[in-house]
Amino acid sequence: MSIINLQLLLTGNELINGDVIDTNSAYIAKQVKPLGIDIAKRVTLADNLTVLINEIKIMSQQCNLLIINGGLGPTSDDLTAEALSIAANLPLTENPEALLHLKSWASKRMYTLDKANLKQAVLPDKCNIIANRTGSAVGIHININDCDIFCTPGVPSELKIMLNEEIIPYLKKQLPPQEFLHTTRLQTYGIGESQLQMIMQEHLAALPTTIEIGYRANAPTVELKLITHTEASYQLKTTWLKKIHQVLNDHILGEIKTNDLTLPMCVYEQLLEKKLTITTAESCTGGLLASKITALAGASQVFEAGYVTYSNKMKNHMLSVPQTTLDKYGAVSKETVLAMAKGALSHSSADIVIAVSGIAGPTGATVEKPLGTVWLAWGDSTTLHTQHFVVKGTRLYFQKTVVARGLDLVRRFLIKSSHSPLYIK
Amino acid sequence: MSIINLQLLLTGNELINGDVIDTNSAYIAKQVKPLGIDIAKRVTLADNLTVLINEIKIMSQQCNLLIINGGLGPTSDDLTAEALSIAANLPLTENPEALLHLKSWASKRMYTLDKANLKQAVLPDKCNIIANRTGSAVGIHININDCDIFCTPGVPSELKIMLNEEIIPYLKKQLPPQEFLHTTRLQTYGIGESQLQMIMQEHLAALPTTIEIGYRANAPTVELKLITHTEASYQLKTTWLKKIHQVLNDHILGEIKTNDLTLPMCVYEQLLEKKLTITTAESCTGGLLASKITALAGASQVFEAGYVTYSNKMKNHMLSVPQTTLDKYGAVSKETVLAMAKGALSHSSADIVIAVSGIAGPTGATVEKPLGTVWLAWGDSTTLHTQHFVVKGTRLYFQKTVVARGLDLVRRFLIKSSHSPLYIK
Repeated sequence: MSIINLQLLLTGNELINGDVIDTNSAYIAKQVKPLGIDIAKRVTLADNLTVLINEIKIMSQQCNLLIINGGLGPTSDDLTAEALSIAANLPLTENPEALLHLKSWASKRMYTLDKANLKQAVLPDKCNIIANRTGSAVGIHININDCDIFCTPGVPSELKIMLNEEIIPYLKKQLPPQEFLHTTRLQTYGIGESQLQMIMQEHLAALPTTIEIGYRANAPTVELKLITHTEASYQLKTTWLKKIHQVLNDHILGEIKTNDLTLPMCVYEQLLEKKLTITTAESCTGGLLASKITALAGASQVFEAGYVTYSNKMKNHMLSVPQTTLDKYGAVSKETVLAMAKGALSHSSADIVIAVSGIAGPTGATVEKPLGTVWLAWGDSTTLHTQHFVVKGTRLYFQKTVVARGLDLVRRFLIKSSHSPLYIK
Repeated sequence: MSIINLQLLLTGNELINGDVIDTNSAYIAKQVKPLGIDIAKRVTLADNLTVLINEIKIMSQQCNLLIINGGLGPTSDDLTAEALSIAANLPLTENPEALLHLKSWASKRMYTLDKANLKQAVLPDKCNIIANRTGSAVGIHININDCDIFCTPGVPSELKIMLNEEIIPYLKKQLPPQEFLHTTRLQTYGIGESQLQMIMQEHLAALPTTIEIGYRANAPTVELKLITHTEASYQLKTTWLKKIHQVLNDHILGEIKTNDLTLPMCVYEQLLEKKLTITTAESCTGGLLASKITALAGASQVFEAGYVTYSNKMKNHMLSVPQTTLDKYGAVSKETVLAMAKGALSHSSADIVIAVSGIAGPTGATVEKPLGTVWLAWGDSTTLHTQHFVVKGTRLYFQKTVVARGLDLVRRFLIKSSHSPLYIK
């Protein structure tokens, strides 16, 4: 636990009526996190003086660090300085330092300060100001009820500079020597969030509590986070990671290092590494599979051709699926997807193939083949696998799920996985 | 002033630590606005039981309507039901209705409920539940301290359905008889939000103030809303709608009646009405165009085949683009997209075609053909049009923009538009 208890107060009509999506608080959270500081509470208010004063009074009693964002501008709805002066019981006076900043800001821009601008130099008496390298509004640093309050501009670029150049360095000085924070982010596919949690509880019950576990579903993948706070627990974690890999095996796509790790990215990386190309033969997913691969920069190195054969006629024309196969087994069958896969391989000269045919709905179902029935075939010219699923849900859910499983099955083929995914019963 | 004083409480570690940007509260604000309700305060908390209970107690005393968002899921960090039960001083019991919902939800997906899922049916005793048409978690409706509390899921798609189908209709009933409110929603494509606003101001300056104008960008379309509050202004609106249609002409896709009106839907409706089929020949968009059409239920009536010809070789093999054309003009040229379009028409026997070839980046640009260069060809066997664009932005933005323009150009071809879109300079 950090000795700092941070709360966040955002002010702005545009934030609360939904005209502007708040990204500042996520930014602040990410910046203070490495200091071991979590935000305990975040309050967003409209520009209303009474409400603002009241909330400042309450929050300054609940926490020992309060960052206020917004309301420092020149217009009449910018109320932070006034609210602070009343909450702190200090008169509003013209702050010489703030005035100097305003004048220098204006002269650099060959801009003449108007009355509204000058309001920005009128601050609670004897407060400290925080430098603002880019904007007109200075920040305010004041103490109310033993709570350190920092007021920052709502303009994201100004907030960022003020936070990184002024507030974070100040906070670092207040904190005891830094703890040893380390986060491992494992990307998984094929296990739902609650199922993943149960598996972890069941198989890894002895996991030390010093290794914090977190889950984040970001369909179709679920991220598993392991956070440690000391050197010792970090060492422990490396041991436990091996056990986690044994339990979850190839449901783990890999470790998320920077941004994200998606199924198409995994397939792409494997193809690139092995110098292979892939082709797609799609019926019910109608180009979605191909589009997931071609959405990646550099796709041309692994992808040359995709076939969207929505009708039976086109499965025959474009992929040479024998008419007899279609007549005898139907479009949604093991035999047809195998023929689609073979056709796509030979027509495209690709090394790897994935073929899909199914009933996305809402029509097209029969008694033998209910809505959501789908056949997949994947592999290369020597080995082709097939699998049948029934995926229930909307048309969109069906298409997305089939594409995700298709990509996962190709990924497992490419890494020569010997494990079976949980979604194959 | 509304008689309803609404506050919002969001819960989720991911919201407060910045992993997820909160878009739900903006959505809620926009949806309650037409009822004359503003959000007075918004509090965001981490998943901490004590803090949550405390805040529910405080907020339920400050307002008479509280919407809680998040914390209804199956995992151990979903604490809303427990916090409510303690704040309301009601025991947690298994809710038969919620259990029924869970079982029906699971059986539709052929999914076996686990212990974690079943937790979602354990709710404060005797609370009302709110239906959830798509997700596993039901909503909770409870009264604490004379405050109406609605608990909604954090998953945006589920929140939207629950809000629009359950909570808004409930709130409407609580409000005094509604004035004569009428909203016309026009869907537009090809004019940016601010440009649309400027055009409206310039050409329709005399529009009466009793006709309220609203804009909503939902890329790639922009919705233009015309709201009237009296019978008289409604009559006025019908006259002004004609003028708006004259000014914006075929940038208007149509009137949004229920859910949404998208470019693929417009193309689909036209094809269906005219009993025509379409085929796609894609290079740089890699299947995305085909997938937009096949995402629609009933796509098989208008779509049989799509060609994803990512390499030159495949443009030649699959679409019979002459090698000499590719050699002489390159893959990204008027001549190549025309040959792709002709090839796709003859190979698929479709009536209508759209062909695309461009440089999505980040590599592949030359001095003559900068990044973002794209050629489109569209039409039928008697008339093929071509157009060249340079679309600057990320790979994803490029692909989405090209797909949208391609669909819009096909739509304009099908409705025999005599107007030129603004995005063709």
